[in-house]
Amino acid sequence: MANPATSIRVDALAHRVMKRCDHLSGHSDEHGRITRLYLSPAIHAIHVDLSAWMSDIGMTVRTDAAGNLVGRLSTVLAPSDEPTLYDNQDAPIPPQADAPATPRPVLLIGSHIDTVPNAGKYDGLLGVIVALAVAERLSELQTELPFDLDVVAFSEEEGVRFSKPYLGSAAVAGTFQNKWLDRLDDHGRSMRGVITEFGLDPSEIHEAAYDPEQVLGFIEMHVEQGPVLERSDRPCGVVNAIAGQSRLILRFTGQAGHAGTTPMYPRQDALVSAAHLIAEVQDYGRSIDGLRATVGYVNCHPNVRNVIPGEVEVSLDIRHAMDDVREIAVDALLETATRIASEDGVSVEVVENQPQPATEMDSVLSGLLSQAMEDAGHEPFDLLSGAGHDAVAMAASFPVSMLFVRHPDGVSHNPNERVNEADVAVTIDVLTRAVQLLASQVRETAEV
Amino acid sequence: MANPATSIRVDALAHRVMKRCDHLSGHSDEHGRITRLYLSPAIHAIHVDLSAWMSDIGMTVRTDAAGNLVGRLSTVLAPSDEPTLYDNQDAPIPPQADAPATPRPVLLIGSHIDTVPNAGKYDGLLGVIVALAVAERLSELQTELPFDLDVVAFSEEEGVRFSKPYLGSAAVAGTFQNKWLDRLDDHGRSMRGVITEFGLDPSEIHEAAYDPEQVLGFIEMHVEQGPVLERSDRPCGVVNAIAGQSRLILRFTGQAGHAGTTPMYPRQDALVSAAHLIAEVQDYGRSIDGLRATVGYVNCHPNVRNVIPGEVEVSLDIRHAMDDVREIAVDALLETATRIASEDGVSVEVVENQPQPATEMDSVLSGLLSQAMEDAGHEPFDLLSGAGHDAVAMAASFPVSMLFVRHPDGVSHNPNERVNEADVAVTIDVLTRAVQLLASQVRETAEV
Repeated sequence: MANPATSIRVDALAHRVMKRCDHLSGHSDEHGRITRLYLSPAIHAIHVDLSAWMSDIGMTVRTDAAGNLVGRLSTVLAPSDEPTLYDNQDAPIPPQADAPATPRPVLLIGSHIDTVPNAGKYDGLLGVIVALAVAERLSELQTELPFDLDVVAFSEEEGVRFSKPYLGSAAVAGTFQNKWLDRLDDHGRSMRGVITEFGLDPSEIHEAAYDPEQVLGFIEMHVEQGPVLERSDRPCGVVNAIAGQSRLILRFTGQAGHAGTTPMYPRQDALVSAAHLIAEVQDYGRSIDGLRATVGYVNCHPNVRNVIPGEVEVSLDIRHAMDDVREIAVDALLETATRIASEDGVSVEVVENQPQPATEMDSVLSGLLSQAMEDAGHEPFDLLSGAGHDAVAMAASFPVSMLFVRHPDGVSHNPNERVNEADVAVTIDVLTRAVQLLASQVRETAEV
Repeated sequence: MANPATSIRVDALAHRVMKRCDHLSGHSDEHGRITRLYLSPAIHAIHVDLSAWMSDIGMTVRTDAAGNLVGRLSTVLAPSDEPTLYDNQDAPIPPQADAPATPRPVLLIGSHIDTVPNAGKYDGLLGVIVALAVAERLSELQTELPFDLDVVAFSEEEGVRFSKPYLGSAAVAGTFQNKWLDRLDDHGRSMRGVITEFGLDPSEIHEAAYDPEQVLGFIEMHVEQGPVLERSDRPCGVVNAIAGQSRLILRFTGQAGHAGTTPMYPRQDALVSAAHLIAEVQDYGRSIDGLRATVGYVNCHPNVRNVIPGEVEVSLDIRHAMDDVREIAVDALLETATRIASEDGVSVEVVENQPQPATEMDSVLSGLLSQAMEDAGHEPFDLLSGAGHDAVAMAASFPVSMLFVRHPDGVSHNPNERVNEADVAVTIDVLTRAVQLLASQVRETAEV
């Protein structure tokens, strides 16, 4: 069972987490709505607040060249030692007695601070603020950690600004590709230019990567974006896998023409063909259990009222827990698009097809989270993540796991997103315990 | 039959018209495509060239506050007089013997110089260049005109930049509404600001209006945007009416949500509902003879790949020669939209509904054009215009008529737009004759 004294303090931290989420929701690219695109001024404002809070609890703070903000808690306490906090990340870590000359291991916790347009307060940001609360709690408890604890606020996860998700976590995982720097946003500004204008050096992005040898893992706490925890009446749950996802762009090409003079036959209206597909995508999605099939993006050329659209691009977002079901769905929908194009006398091409297989969570880290749930007085509970997360990109290089907190309505990517303060308190408790369990495990391994 | 000597000279003028259209097609807002939005730098470049050509043939040139470029040919020749060309429009016209002290009447000819995105070379511009050729021809022939001849290059007809067509001709017709100045373009710039930046004073737009008492009429020459002349193998034809048009914007509102986690039931995907409508608009359009029904514009919110669209706006462009058929079509499609919204569990509202009744051409001016065709050796031929034109706005205040030139492919609002040089020569001849016929008629009326 939870220690009552512990719980009281955790409740206060949870209360402050909620206040901080409220406060940070004011940092937005748009008046009256929450929208934070990659490296926008609102992201800078978030950095300012987060940096101050990180510094307050003795973390050293840095921003890497991909725009990730990283606060490091470096406790090298031994029961008999004085606390030692490194104020300067560049300062060499002093060799400890019995410590090998290799760099100190590190555990990363955190999430992202960018959002979709018109987002809620919690998607991403909550995981960063809770991670900070965990660091604070560990610091207060004078927990000696045989590793550094890095709280990471990833700069980009949603893929909105440059149609490419996981920019921040890819940089940390060492999988960032320099060709992405040439991508343009909707205003024709390149990623390279945007990074430079933020005061960062895009040529240094590779330095954001962590050495996998040094990384114990990444634990991400995130609001559940579905109804599972709500329906099973649980405050939080351990993610066992992240559903695979296929992200496609299809382009229909017909024939532009004057809307008033071109006869209805034989029109080659690319938007009509796209519409036929959009309708069938939903129908197909509804026919396969557990499938999610969505057209979220449509780009119509020339998009003028009195011109028959000559070219239309649509996105396809296809997800399923089982990779083979997803792959079959993608094939079926591409076949549908081809049939529609043929029937309508237009052409269709696949402009982009990014498959992302399902991501398994690390069994050791997930085991620690489940153990921590049990220690905190909650029955362990596993669930699948339908949404992608920074953990997907991080899993390319490091062991990862995730803890979801209940979303009372299950509606995400939406301004009505909510979380319960009591559930947040549970996640702070569980995560703190999980980090402590990992510390014990690392120490035991070192002793063996 | 046409006078052979006349024809040769008209052929040379037609050849130069084609060259000028080629030359001016280089003035574009976009590299490699023809796009000229209202008062863009490309419009300014067009003004520079047109002004020079107008001045070359002795016209006085001015730009009104709506951005229309107007060249005036003021011949007051009598058979025994020297040619007198006024170089300064502000100079008072010298009183003539037997001339009343009222302002001299004026005939306007011309068309527009803006385009849709990725347009052809001829839509609009050809009518201006041909009007210049007609002025030059009249000048060469030393035709005494008992009226001024104003060649007008309307600044805006397509309605692309501010989703409002006929800005230039509305100003000339005196129907420009000052509230339009508050409209914003896609970059958030107001029409007022755009006009001011072009060096014009938006508060003077009302001065662009002509006195209907003074205007004999407006004749617009335009490339046909359909296949009628091509199919009947005629170089040109006289428009008898411009089809009515309804321009609507419908907004579907559903519920945004995460594409990966929101179950397929019960989704309220506004884009799926819009897609259902788009498909039905084409089906309905094909079911009614002569109807044109087009969705050319779609605006999806938030338009992000991993978010279920919460709000989608689509345009409806509905046209028919008969107003009652068009009105029935609009009602039927609005009913369809309501049914779809109800079936899909979303809401729909009509954001905008601008009906434009069919525009009748002036029988006197059209009669002159038909007579001129006959005099030039071509059987008179009438046809309906499916597209809207500046003549629609001008008809609010003045007698109007239009002459269409054959389009060999009938594909308009498209970079493949074409015209035959020989057909252009015919239109120069026909229009010149029509102006001469009008001059005779005005003189006869004055003598009666």
